[in-house]
Amino acid sequence: MKTVTIIGLGLIGGSLGLSLRQLGLAAHIIGVDLNADNARRAQELGLVDETTADLAAAVRRADLVVVAVPMDAMLTVVPQVLDEVAQQVVIDVGSTKATLLTHLQEHPRRSRFVAVHPMAGTEYSGPEAAVPDLFTDKTLVVCDAQHSDADAVQLVEQVFQGLGMHLLFLDAADHDLHAAYVSHISHITSFALALTVLEKEKEEQRIFDLASGGFASTVRLAKSSPAMWVPIFRQNRLNVLDVLDEHLHQLQNLRNLIAREDFNGLHHAIEQANHIRKILP
Amino acid sequence: MKTVTIIGLGLIGGSLGLSLRQLGLAAHIIGVDLNADNARRAQELGLVDETTADLAAAVRRADLVVVAVPMDAMLTVVPQVLDEVAQQVVIDVGSTKATLLTHLQEHPRRSRFVAVHPMAGTEYSGPEAAVPDLFTDKTLVVCDAQHSDADAVQLVEQVFQGLGMHLLFLDAADHDLHAAYVSHISHITSFALALTVLEKEKEEQRIFDLASGGFASTVRLAKSSPAMWVPIFRQNRLNVLDVLDEHLHQLQNLRNLIAREDFNGLHHAIEQANHIRKILP
Repeated sequence: MKTVTIIGLGLIGGSLGLSLRQLGLAAHIIGVDLNADNARRAQELGLVDETTADLAAAVRRADLVVVAVPMDAMLTVVPQVLDEVAQQVVIDVGSTKATLLTHLQEHPRRSRFVAVHPMAGTEYSGPEAAVPDLFTDKTLVVCDAQHSDADAVQLVEQVFQGLGMHLLFLDAADHDLHAAYVSHISHITSFALALTVLEKEKEEQRIFDLASGGFASTVRLAKSSPAMWVPIFRQNRLNVLDVLDEHLHQLQNLRNLIAREDFNGLHHAIEQANHIRKILP
Repeated sequence: MKTVTIIGLGLIGGSLGLSLRQLGLAAHIIGVDLNADNARRAQELGLVDETTADLAAAVRRADLVVVAVPMDAMLTVVPQVLDEVAQQVVIDVGSTKATLLTHLQEHPRRSRFVAVHPMAGTEYSGPEAAVPDLFTDKTLVVCDAQHSDADAVQLVEQVFQGLGMHLLFLDAADHDLHAAYVSHISHITSFALALTVLEKEKEEQRIFDLASGGFASTVRLAKSSPAMWVPIFRQNRLNVLDVLDEHLHQLQNLRNLIAREDFNGLHHAIEQANHIRKILP
């Protein structure tokens, strides 16, 4: 593959540039970011070979275009990119799929687009958050691949297997439901946990002194940016509400067991929760 | 310090034995565990120098006795140990303090006891869970030190500073409240999250495929054992309920913002949650 254009040089776009360069999977990488400061830093950090503000030219020069912007911007940027496309392959790397794919379904170049979601990330954002090996041994979900040209899907397979990812083909609706379970809900509980502690614990130094690994790991995702996450919750609203209502129900149940001092019941519930060990050893 | 007796050879007791041996902070370490299999494995793993089932003799031979059993057993074992004590120093390493200290307040040897809580742990339990360096750079809370003899507190300072811990002196009621915020509540949210996902996501292979670092870190604590945690929730019940009610309120609020599509409000709430960055960088 000769040239890759990455639009959006944050955690995911930047890490992708870094990995493609380090593994020699792209001969040349062009970066585009609306934020000129981000673009400059991405180049300084060696995430891309060059940057430009000319989106149309950057698309035309590419073999593969990666759109790595927040999900609200995705709805504008992906159609703009597809408008410029001849035989290039275009992918998004966003966290929700149904809204975007519905939005694109009438686009004349739809078949050059492949919707993918790398199940990888950290709580940080921006070019400085880019890290190598972010994608190694992680899952790449490819959605509704039957609506993409075979050569386009093949290029995606080749690139992401080259990054050490395992591919999983799902339809967009299934993806959005599973993503609500295993990613979106974790962020909401973490935001709520941070708000709880910040509300109840006025002595910030005490939080710092006492926070052990357990607290730090459950509250880590609460550092995640609203610019990325609000559009995800907006686009996956019904699945998120469904899972969140189940979570509220489970939490209320644990609360009631403690309130009425039913410690046998609590023991049983914790044993049930321990089954997660079998799935995530 | 010559001889340390550790009662309870699980994650904390075992890790303490390992660290004291590796750092040369004790000349001889005696292990006691009601479970003969645990005792045997602790010795095989090199966590202690010898094991015995004779609690009274193990206490009499020690300079320092560490009681590292679940909080319900603590209420029986610590008084048993203190009954055997002449000039030995006895510590617990438990996660709640007010119930235990009230229980001990009339004991004739109370002043030989120092209540400490190392703010360190993992989700695993048993002798195999013991790891070196568990305590390095962590906080050790010392509770109600004014009720302990000065030489006993001094020995505790010397040993745990030797392990690289920072000491923090709190009264028991404050400790239990702060521990509810920064440790106990994280476990409850994690148990509830595991139950939610196990309830809603029937395709276990999908959980495994899709779980990225974020989910794994929020659900990690749900692997923790009920034998350890139920007694903690029982003894710290009122603080845990208080913090849990605030957490339910915060979660309900995020849910309502999403339900009524108030995405500006949601953005603001996430920005507030992001303040946790300032405290836990």
